Amino acid sequence: MLVVGELINASRKAISAAIKDKDAEAIKKVAVDQREAGADYIDVNAGIFMGKEADYLQWLVTTVQEVTDAPCCIDSPDPNAISAALSVHKGTAMINSISMEKERYENLLPIIAGTDLKVVALCMGDGAMPETTDERLKIADQLINGLVKNNVPIENIYVDPLVQPVGTNKSFGIEFLNAVEAIMTRYKGVHTMCGLSNISFGLPNRKYINQAFAVMAIAKGLDGLIINPLDKQMMANLIVAETLVGRDDFCCNYLEAYRAKKFEF
Amino acid sequence: MLVVGELINASRKAISAAIKDKDAEAIKKVAVDQREAGADYIDVNAGIFMGKEADYLQWLVTTVQEVTDAPCCIDSPDPNAISAALSVHKGTAMINSISMEKERYENLLPIIAGTDLKVVALCMGDGAMPETTDERLKIADQLINGLVKNNVPIENIYVDPLVQPVGTNKSFGIEFLNAVEAIMTRYKGVHTMCGLSNISFGLPNRKYINQAFAVMAIAKGLDGLIINPLDKQMMANLIVAETLVGRDDFCCNYLEAYRAKKFEF
Repeated sequence: MLVVGELINASRKAISAAIKDKDAEAIKKVAVDQREAGADYIDVNAGIFMGKEADYLQWLVTTVQEVTDAPCCIDSPDPNAISAALSVHKGTAMINSISMEKERYENLLPIIAGTDLKVVALCMGDGAMPETTDERLKIADQLINGLVKNNVPIENIYVDPLVQPVGTNKSFGIEFLNAVEAIMTRYKGVHTMCGLSNISFGLPNRKYINQAFAVMAIAKGLDGLIINPLDKQMMANLIVAETLVGRDDFCCNYLEAYRAKKFEF
Repeated sequence: MLVVGELINASRKAISAAIKDKDAEAIKKVAVDQREAGADYIDVNAGIFMGKEADYLQWLVTTVQEVTDAPCCIDSPDPNAISAALSVHKGTAMINSISMEKERYENLLPIIAGTDLKVVALCMGDGAMPETTDERLKIADQLINGLVKNNVPIENIYVDPLVQPVGTNKSFGIEFLNAVEAIMTRYKGVHTMCGLSNISFGLPNRKYINQAFAVMAIAKGLDGLIINPLDKQMMANLIVAETLVGRDDFCCNYLEAYRAKKFEF
């Protein structure tokens, strides 16, 4: 399970303030905390700063990598901001994300083609958001084929089938879950990954819903998540879910987590 | 989701004592508590009492049905004990369980054939316990076809794919889950159901594992569980899981449970 720590996102007040003030210590602390809690990648997002996103993303990457050995997940739809961030990034970054929106696809593809970058492939096009499994699969197929044709190894592709709120339509959860399963079954070597919080949009007790949805998605084959790794209950759910789907030899990881008291909240 | 309350089982000390002492009040309390907590069926088991099982099962059914309107799930492999229990049962009972073990199958089939009894069909034969999805499917196919040919409506069949401990073999969880999904996909109208506790056998923090496994199984299509309905966390997990797989119109059941404080433990 690949864990991307989601906390360094300018849509969060404390982060946008730290970015504006160039408060490197604040950013570094969030980076280190997430890495220590188990994040494989540190997401960096400065999307709210129109016109300054490229500069700020660059600063975030440099700041984060001063204190952790983790690569960054560069979270932007803007090719200029992504290029700026990549120019200072050490190691192999993840791009979050390409999609089938025409402009985004055409501008991002040259940056990713033929590289060993990891890439999140978001199931979104210029039309309406996909709602059914089939609508997701159609876009996933275009993205996977397009990237592979452009010399992106399938193992570097993390398809995000796009979580939609179950409060809007009762079938949105299962349609997403079945898309995960179909993608993982049809495209050998590809990964799937998502953020969770949309699933519970508009409902109370959201963390609880998000946790159960993560467990379900793992049962369907999901192997990446953009989450808050400081959420101990979520992390505990991931451990037990991975054990239950056969990703934990001799339950070693589960037992180690148990001894480290990771199931005590 | 069909919930069978598992607590009236003679393998539990308090229950075996209550059965021996013919302490009807103790049994009635456990029955009423389970019913109020959401059990659709009340499991009755007197399996440890060799030679007296039929009498005791009969007494349990009568005692339970004096205080609840719920049908019983008659939990025995013995056709004589089941017949005795059925002779006093009001409403439509569930038989737990037929299997492909030759003697059990041949003796139970005449009791079930052509009736409207619900029946748990346990994926077990005379050979080794099934370990893979395919081994489970082979037995499930024999059971479903055998029962349907003998005029048991497919809607009355609850296939139990047989949970095996993930501590013994890391693939036992996913093989079970994939069997649930295959059975629910291939046999329209059939149900799947199981007890959970075997999955966590030998591991610490078992309740937590069982809960996550229930959520996963529901994501794969499971629609019945033999559980302790007094376990509030488990019941809360079932509510959120059903909402997430599209079984909850407008999230009404989830919101009602939230307002009733069912997510506060």
